[in-house]
Amino acid sequence: MKISELSRRTGVPVASIKYFRREGLLPAGRATAATLAEYGDEHVQRLRLIKALTTLGGLSIAAARDVLTAVDQSESADGTLKAISYALPVPVAQAPAGDADEEAEAEAAAAADVAGLIAAMGWQVPDDSPHVQGLTTALRELRRLDADYRPERLVHYAELAHSVARLDMERAAAFENSPTLAEQAVIVLALSGPLLELLRRLAQEDQVRRRSA
Amino acid sequence: MKISELSRRTGVPVASIKYFRREGLLPAGRATAATLAEYGDEHVQRLRLIKALTTLGGLSIAAARDVLTAVDQSESADGTLKAISYALPVPVAQAPAGDADEEAEAEAAAAADVAGLIAAMGWQVPDDSPHVQGLTTALRELRRLDADYRPERLVHYAELAHSVARLDMERAAAFENSPTLAEQAVIVLALSGPLLELLRRLAQEDQVRRRSA
Repeated sequence: MKISELSRRTGVPVASIKYFRREGLLPAGRATAATLAEYGDEHVQRLRLIKALTTLGGLSIAAARDVLTAVDQSESADGTLKAISYALPVPVAQAPAGDADEEAEAEAAAAADVAGLIAAMGWQVPDDSPHVQGLTTALRELRRLDADYRPERLVHYAELAHSVARLDMERAAAFENSPTLAEQAVIVLALSGPLLELLRRLAQEDQVRRRSA
Repeated sequence: MKISELSRRTGVPVASIKYFRREGLLPAGRATAATLAEYGDEHVQRLRLIKALTTLGGLSIAAARDVLTAVDQSESADGTLKAISYALPVPVAQAPAGDADEEAEAEAAAAADVAGLIAAMGWQVPDDSPHVQGLTTALRELRRLDADYRPERLVHYAELAHSVARLDMERAAAFENSPTLAEQAVIVLALSGPLLELLRRLAQEDQVRRRSA
């Protein structure tokens, strides 16, 4: 199909399609003339995936490109899952500010809480994991707000997060023998967060309404 | 304390403090002269909360103002929880695009899935809830990607989300008799999502590493 038809079928403007091409998110079409290219169903699917990642998933164009590069360069299912996992942006709090000594102390206390939690959960993650740093920064900020997120409280949340990650992994790995493994793994791993957040907000609305009924 | 000391203690630049004042996120200090104001510990706490909401929580200034207005106008604990819950922004996918008939069909199918899930969970939420609409839009986009999010699969995620919401509600309501109820409820309800996401990403990293070990 021509680029105009690709645009019509996906609802993505022609200018955006060209932009995704230039930025390396969308593979080239089959050249049929110097200025014409023929696109196929794989381009329709890829454009829908780009849309889902950048809107529902909230990924920047750069982050979406990193994730899709991991997909396109995948050699093994496990390697792909790992590459996608690390290509996804980590939600983080702002860098510390204010008194340097106080900050160092707060950072050390938060780091100890995170290490204790990881040990309690039996998680195998490296010390320099971006997720460890992200959680440490978040806990440091929550401590400053006198919010009670001690490890014995956090562990309940961690257990639920662990169950979600297991559900995701079962689903991401179920596509192992399919040619669409990598794209489906992206969908599961990248969109699980936003989907869970929507479900949590619905459940929260239910809880709040029950209390005020 | 003077505004310069408030800035030093919180790490928030004076210009930002003035901006938050103008935008109605931070209450006025006690006027000590025509151009001078005296700030207290409640301003330190409020600035830290604004920082947490806008960085870790990812809220826009407008959304943070809505949430803090709900806090400041709170009359009952239940009313405050409800106001905060609805003031938080809903993560949503992009509006539909492409063929109108196809879109209407996809939207109806997603809406039916959401209604089935809500019934299965026994959640009491109104049909016009922004969270219902957000989840419907998300599922419509996931269907287009051939991602398998049928109600019988989603229900496992919904049950975990329900457990998180119950944990949150127990904590938000535990502050009932404290003067800091509203601010602590904001922390629990607004920052639960980002915190859960960090824990989920850590758990995901653990799962991915175990597979590729």
